[in-house]
Amino acid sequence: MATMASLFLKTPGPSQYLPKTHKTHFVLPQHIPLSWRSRYRAGPLAAARIRCGLIEPDGGKLVELVVEETQRDLKRRQALSLPQIKLSKIDIQWVHVLSEGWASPLKGFMRESEFLQTLHFNSLRLGDGSVVNMSVPIVLAIDDSNKNNIGDSSSVALVDDKDNPIAILNDVEIYKHNKEERTARTWGTTAPGLPYAEQAITHAGNWLIGGDLEVIEPIKYHDGLDRFRLSPAELRDEFTRRNADAVFAFQLRNPVHNGHALLMTDTRRRLLEMGYKNPILLLHPLGGYTKADDVPLEWRMKQHEMVLEDGVLDPETTVVSIFPSPMHYAGPTEVQWHAKARINAGANFYIVGRDPAGMGHPLEKRDLYDADHGKKVLSMAPGLERLNILPFKVAAYDKTKNGMAFFDPSRPQDFLFISGTKMRALAKNKESPPDGFMCPGGWKVLVDYYDSLTPSENGSVPEPVPV
Amino acid sequence: MATMASLFLKTPGPSQYLPKTHKTHFVLPQHIPLSWRSRYRAGPLAAARIRCGLIEPDGGKLVELVVEETQRDLKRRQALSLPQIKLSKIDIQWVHVLSEGWASPLKGFMRESEFLQTLHFNSLRLGDGSVVNMSVPIVLAIDDSNKNNIGDSSSVALVDDKDNPIAILNDVEIYKHNKEERTARTWGTTAPGLPYAEQAITHAGNWLIGGDLEVIEPIKYHDGLDRFRLSPAELRDEFTRRNADAVFAFQLRNPVHNGHALLMTDTRRRLLEMGYKNPILLLHPLGGYTKADDVPLEWRMKQHEMVLEDGVLDPETTVVSIFPSPMHYAGPTEVQWHAKARINAGANFYIVGRDPAGMGHPLEKRDLYDADHGKKVLSMAPGLERLNILPFKVAAYDKTKNGMAFFDPSRPQDFLFISGTKMRALAKNKESPPDGFMCPGGWKVLVDYYDSLTPSENGSVPEPVPV
Repeated sequence: MATMASLFLKTPGPSQYLPKTHKTHFVLPQHIPLSWRSRYRAGPLAAARIRCGLIEPDGGKLVELVVEETQRDLKRRQALSLPQIKLSKIDIQWVHVLSEGWASPLKGFMRESEFLQTLHFNSLRLGDGSVVNMSVPIVLAIDDSNKNNIGDSSSVALVDDKDNPIAILNDVEIYKHNKEERTARTWGTTAPGLPYAEQAITHAGNWLIGGDLEVIEPIKYHDGLDRFRLSPAELRDEFTRRNADAVFAFQLRNPVHNGHALLMTDTRRRLLEMGYKNPILLLHPLGGYTKADDVPLEWRMKQHEMVLEDGVLDPETTVVSIFPSPMHYAGPTEVQWHAKARINAGANFYIVGRDPAGMGHPLEKRDLYDADHGKKVLSMAPGLERLNILPFKVAAYDKTKNGMAFFDPSRPQDFLFISGTKMRALAKNKESPPDGFMCPGGWKVLVDYYDSLTPSENGSVPEPVPV
Repeated sequence: MATMASLFLKTPGPSQYLPKTHKTHFVLPQHIPLSWRSRYRAGPLAAARIRCGLIEPDGGKLVELVVEETQRDLKRRQALSLPQIKLSKIDIQWVHVLSEGWASPLKGFMRESEFLQTLHFNSLRLGDGSVVNMSVPIVLAIDDSNKNNIGDSSSVALVDDKDNPIAILNDVEIYKHNKEERTARTWGTTAPGLPYAEQAITHAGNWLIGGDLEVIEPIKYHDGLDRFRLSPAELRDEFTRRNADAVFAFQLRNPVHNGHALLMTDTRRRLLEMGYKNPILLLHPLGGYTKADDVPLEWRMKQHEMVLEDGVLDPETTVVSIFPSPMHYAGPTEVQWHAKARINAGANFYIVGRDPAGMGHPLEKRDLYDADHGKKVLSMAPGLERLNILPFKVAAYDKTKNGMAFFDPSRPQDFLFISGTKMRALAKNKESPPDGFMCPGGWKVLVDYYDSLTPSENGSVPEPVPV
């Protein structure tokens, strides 16, 4: 992993042309082709805006909830005296998300007013009347016995499965957890079989508890990947150190193939054409809960490493880091969260693909979401007006070039579409994709992953385990 | 019905103290008790605002879509040359709603961008960046054969069940009607048995068609109640003629009892205390589709007439009119629509009750919505910031006073709660409620209504039919 680590430690050369301050200001370069601006901005109501310098976090200030080192022992002792709530793995991932300010300006698990605004409006109105996007509920469920145990206490301790205190939740508010309504409004369906719902909602308690978090120490997973988990503040520092004047984020939860790489390279070229001098790519694989048939984070990171070692992406202009959020698979609702969190990490451009955060309908033989709704909803979402949305151009395997290329509708017969499902099927069967689909080192990682799932000598198949 | 008609034809005496123009301006009278302001404004993020004069319609201008009289024949002939879509009764109610600007700034059935914003954000962003509330989809469903028939035509004729042209829809856009997602995001459930869904969604076509409406003539129902169907423009004229400096709207779909009357009278008293000189009540029964076990509009209007004849409400300061919208029973989502439409009719205060637009869960033995969510969501809803939300105070039958009074929690034993269900059961059984619950004339209307449903000689019971 040395290669990836070096990606965000490498110092670019000196640069005279960049702003010295972080102050956000609007610049609309004169020479941006208008055709491109309108093409790249979906939705009738959105207007293209272009910015230099790092975008401001939502609410104006990045929220950071880890207590000072000098306070930690005190907080640990305090936690011992409080009613306790045991956190699941997903709960801890949300504590992580909140602690570093990915959900700024949220200061903890949602209280009811925030929960209701999220469900109904996908946004929160702040005290000054301004609006920030917030589309997925970040909530903590408790059961009746937890609630009784908390009684009138205004603070509770949040502990891990070994009872180690992780955080204190203050000024708590307990309210009803209407699981059906939460699910319907978040996913647009209540069909049984939604992975996140089965994992974190269906069997969760009938109450939600909100409050302000004090996180006792930075959340770590000790899985060899913590060094890739840069916080929004650390990412902002890195972008500043690199003198980025544009940051474009690419969210992914799948192996990177050459079509993705083409898209990212092409986006950088276009940003340069627009007048930006140093656009930086944030290649940002999701690291929290994923469904069992997705490729686990550990293997994806190995695959990304190989892709980078093969020189498909330029380390000088790429930062690889892990986004700690769990995955909802809530399509147009969730893509807003994915975009909003990246604003907080300093990204002002967001690449959105076909059917982002989508999946098949749990019961019916169709995609759960219209493939175009994600980018449409994202382009109209309240609180995301200052983020530039870059819809994915369709890349496919061009048989005349033996490589991935942007699809040319004038010669469809020359193109081969290799879906994620097809890619996984090939790797499972140790077959090779066409030359130029993915670098050989990256492909080998995928084959090795599926190999690790084949039956052992006693005939049992290791289950793919969600991260 | 003469009494009610006269309510909005009566001229109040001259008034020197009222603004002569409609121009909207903010006034925060100095002497409003702060305690009342905060009590009457739910939600932590909302701020009390008080206005004089009539509130501006959403989008700045009231939309009116009925074509000029001189154009009607031309439009009728044009309609004959276009592909036709047959409208259901509910579709025609929506044409009515749109034609008069209740949904301003909507100019017709929603296109996909408006539909998606409604489902996800309960609001629409306008070209100038401002936001208006829009929480229920106002859409027109068509089936495959309609779609084929329309082909590439950019306009279609909307006709009634006798093929009379009602309207022309221009610059049409056809997009998918995902009924499950629409239902889940609007109602927060997909349980079978939602009245509106069963009536207008489940068996509707798999496509939606949006566009700009030209309505050929004002929508009339010829049921003896058309004279009570004042448009937003007519209501605004009436409020202006009465020199209203505050308009408080009371949405209802049930018979009025003395608890309601107490609340309305008390609200006026409080508005006077706040410094308003001439607050006018808009008593605004919903007139569109309602579920079969609600009391039909015709009987409710008779009941309201009796209540007014009995002098329970003051005709000088009350305008009774019919709100033409169909009913969704979508609780916190729908109450926003009910409030937003009344802004367009000139109301700047909106009274919200317990569990507004709510109903029982279709499958489970519980209310579908948390009884407090309606007023909470309403108080935080985007685009409704300039509307003053007045949460309902709980009224109950005070046995010590033999009348309805605001509930006093210090002596709960003195109060009797008579729910809508209980009220209907009493009327069905020709029993009397306690004296002072409802004026005798109003009660008799209810008894007569249920009487009209009792088995006839051949033993068949007339079905209660939705309006």
